[in-house]
Amino acid sequence: MKSFTTRLSEQVNYKKSHLCVGLDISPEGLGSSDLSLKDLIKHSLKIIDATIEMAVCYKPNLAFYERWGPEGFEWLETVIKHIGNRSLTIADGKRGDIGNTAKQYAKSIFNYFGFDAVTTNPYMGRDSIEPFTENPEKGVFILCRTSNPSATELQNLEIGGETIFEHVAQLAATLNKNDNIGLVVGATAPNEIKMIRKLAPKLPFLIPGIGAQGGDLEKSLRHGNDNGIAIINISRGISFSGDMSNTAIRSAAQDYIDKMREIINGQK
Amino acid sequence: MKSFTTRLSEQVNYKKSHLCVGLDISPEGLGSSDLSLKDLIKHSLKIIDATIEMAVCYKPNLAFYERWGPEGFEWLETVIKHIGNRSLTIADGKRGDIGNTAKQYAKSIFNYFGFDAVTTNPYMGRDSIEPFTENPEKGVFILCRTSNPSATELQNLEIGGETIFEHVAQLAATLNKNDNIGLVVGATAPNEIKMIRKLAPKLPFLIPGIGAQGGDLEKSLRHGNDNGIAIINISRGISFSGDMSNTAIRSAAQDYIDKMREIINGQK
Repeated sequence: MKSFTTRLSEQVNYKKSHLCVGLDISPEGLGSSDLSLKDLIKHSLKIIDATIEMAVCYKPNLAFYERWGPEGFEWLETVIKHIGNRSLTIADGKRGDIGNTAKQYAKSIFNYFGFDAVTTNPYMGRDSIEPFTENPEKGVFILCRTSNPSATELQNLEIGGETIFEHVAQLAATLNKNDNIGLVVGATAPNEIKMIRKLAPKLPFLIPGIGAQGGDLEKSLRHGNDNGIAIINISRGISFSGDMSNTAIRSAAQDYIDKMREIINGQK
Repeated sequence: MKSFTTRLSEQVNYKKSHLCVGLDISPEGLGSSDLSLKDLIKHSLKIIDATIEMAVCYKPNLAFYERWGPEGFEWLETVIKHIGNRSLTIADGKRGDIGNTAKQYAKSIFNYFGFDAVTTNPYMGRDSIEPFTENPEKGVFILCRTSNPSATELQNLEIGGETIFEHVAQLAATLNKNDNIGLVVGATAPNEIKMIRKLAPKLPFLIPGIGAQGGDLEKSLRHGNDNGIAIINISRGISFSGDMSNTAIRSAAQDYIDKMREIINGQK
């Protein structure tokens, strides 16, 4: 049995890619509030078809599916089945609850939907995280330093010269007994990525915040991919690029892949 | 238009109750892993029928529904419709994400399912909370000091003599411009409830952790209900009491109500 971190590493090497494609599809994103769920489903499958050879992971953000109730969950099933074993999948739900409840979330995400990984919130401490880490094949990305404007409000508070996000990075490294824990670190905070990498060597980083949120691709990838793997999530920059055709989506993804290869090969 | 806190206060006065009934139904909880979803649905409606005159709120924990995929969400719809306007409803999902995503969660919980309130996680700061607070009628209970064993791991870290949970309490009080923000504070930490009440007067407290988790009902209710409303959540202690008949469930809820009235009337 291979650990999640090994599985991710193999995908990265096989596809020569660090691209995670975010699947956060809304009528607003597609530019019309009149669109039906059918249109959204069609677009999500189009994105997958256009990027499957380049994406090491797909990251559906659960909120965008839950908005539609039971039909939204059916859509999520369709998405996961369509990806199959051609790429890894991350349930971006930022879940976090007491142990007894976390077990139910793990059943939902890993057993029912069959995701390969999940994002979790560390506010409630280790017993909200451990139910997700029991199976080494399944990955758990713990929120560490997020990409949003108010991220610093709690995460950058200092305790004895150490921030909360540094504390979380160390906790994650301690809990990583099954080689399946990673961290979410935002591209809007590239210097923090460097600090976190020192505290959590080898842990995979999931880096959102490129594109609409204004993160720094070059620094994030360099710092994150030093002594561990970093995967870069792009959502709106791929899903809604150009005329939103298969060609436009494929071309946007290829542009990101090219940029990332240049950065990693140090040719920039 | 009445604010959520006013609506909650009216329910408490009308029903002379501080009881929130947690709806966290699983086959394991019902004592048999062979049960079908139909059995669980039936049991959840039985709990509602047995307690509707006593419960000021029902709190379905979303994990227990999500575990069943789309059918679980249909079950959640059934539960909310069955309660109707006879009691308030809290979606216990502990959501927290960037603003753009939090908006989608708000659409799901308030617009699609029609809940009256939600629980949210403060780790990502105010822009993960504000999309839920826009409508004054809808309530937002922010996790402050939770009831689980590892709650202290992050929440009790001190910054300049002040813990993270105290910081969150103050943040919540600051954000409470629409009179619709409350706090989740665990009954396993009654002294902390007292500290939090000083920092966040008037904010409603949602207090879980009584029963299976071993919290202190008397102290929690006294401290929480001083200078603001506290509602006490009971899940397993009601849902799975005695022989799980309507009578057993009703009697367990009545016992809790009696105990709480004694505590509040100072007759104990």
